[in-house]
Amino acid sequence: MNSKREYNYRIEPRDVDFMKRATLMSLADYILHAAGEDADRNGFGVRDLNVHNASWVLTRMALETRRMPQEYETIRVTTWVSDVSRAMTTRNFEVFDREGEPVAFAVTNWAMIDLSERRLLDLHTLPSYGSMVQDYHVQIDLPRRLATPVAERECEHRVAYSDLDFNCHANSVRYIQWALDALPIEFLERRRFARTDINFLQETRHGELLHIAWAGVEHCSFEIRNSRQAPVCRLAFETVGNAGKERKEQEESL
Amino acid sequence: MNSKREYNYRIEPRDVDFMKRATLMSLADYILHAAGEDADRNGFGVRDLNVHNASWVLTRMALETRRMPQEYETIRVTTWVSDVSRAMTTRNFEVFDREGEPVAFAVTNWAMIDLSERRLLDLHTLPSYGSMVQDYHVQIDLPRRLATPVAERECEHRVAYSDLDFNCHANSVRYIQWALDALPIEFLERRRFARTDINFLQETRHGELLHIAWAGVEHCSFEIRNSRQAPVCRLAFETVGNAGKERKEQEESL
Repeated sequence: MNSKREYNYRIEPRDVDFMKRATLMSLADYILHAAGEDADRNGFGVRDLNVHNASWVLTRMALETRRMPQEYETIRVTTWVSDVSRAMTTRNFEVFDREGEPVAFAVTNWAMIDLSERRLLDLHTLPSYGSMVQDYHVQIDLPRRLATPVAERECEHRVAYSDLDFNCHANSVRYIQWALDALPIEFLERRRFARTDINFLQETRHGELLHIAWAGVEHCSFEIRNSRQAPVCRLAFETVGNAGKERKEQEESL
Repeated sequence: MNSKREYNYRIEPRDVDFMKRATLMSLADYILHAAGEDADRNGFGVRDLNVHNASWVLTRMALETRRMPQEYETIRVTTWVSDVSRAMTTRNFEVFDREGEPVAFAVTNWAMIDLSERRLLDLHTLPSYGSMVQDYHVQIDLPRRLATPVAERECEHRVAYSDLDFNCHANSVRYIQWALDALPIEFLERRRFARTDINFLQETRHGELLHIAWAGVEHCSFEIRNSRQAPVCRLAFETVGNAGKERKEQEESL
């Protein structure tokens, strides 16, 4: 069975930043949206799992970008399941532009949990999930296990209504947002985020005061802690320059 | 010329809140998106205006909801220009569900500005814009002029990278988000936002510390001020209950 399916999206005005390029958040959101659509299509979506009081939990993500798509560009996301063990499944992604040139790649790790007891469920109990696994290769390294960074700076964020997803926890994409919002705007303007690794460690709820600790712009690694100082998420970015220059060249070639 | 066109959208997982209903922000966003698409289609879009170093600025908005659409519902937004004077044009919206039942109505006021000097431009200089005006009636009152509320509470927000739109100012929809995020979650759960009036008074830029002052949940009116204590936006909400109950009934009838 060929399960490497395609999902098409358009970069809308609300997806872009002040440089009219897709934000890392919107790119991650479209990738996770494709995962949701593909799981739905194969009978393993959140709604299917919810019937059995279960759900998917994203545990790690690696996202590499070759360039950031611009406003009104269409992107094609292909996705497939590449691995499954008892505790974890891996889903890969490729993102192409209209010319078929690669824009981004991603690898995600997911666990299945019981919603009442919040404990891991055995993925081998999902009937015929194993037949989803495809032997395609993805061109990037697997998501890395991140260590606590030596934090030099810190800011705070209280989890708000607008951060919550349908599970009543902060949406996965918000963690990327909080990290980027902590960085100087000049840095965001000058650099492209070539690789992002994220470890999701704990869920966060409405009203929790989070501490966003990070190691300065040279070492672009973050740890987000809850009010008990327990880490809830770690992020590490590898950046390249010069995004502004690259953008200008892209615009001139369009 | 019939210029009352239709735009279809689907309420995606990222558009819903923890009750799996579209947020007021995503509903406003789809409405403004339809405005953008319709203006583009008629040759008066932001990109068309940008060629002449001009742009649209949203000055007021009124948004009434009959119910909040649920996740995966499709909505149909119709929009048309109902009025134009030298300084301001009015664009109306109706939002319907799949059964053709009204979900929401909106009225927006827009000015056209020169991007270098930030001054108002005469809308009568836009060739053939007058022919866009349609004599359709919209079923809600025009956006109200809001006064400064007697503020009992206050919180702060520093305008971040993720708040910025392509104009490098905070996105219009963020003002709604900041107001709702200030409200108690139990209030958001119990009430539907039946009518929202917004007055946009000044643009805000990255790094500005905003003061979100409001008059308590009985008088759901807000004033957002910049660091010089100048008002940048006023919002007033009229709410009805019981949103949770209404949602449950909707789900049962689906």
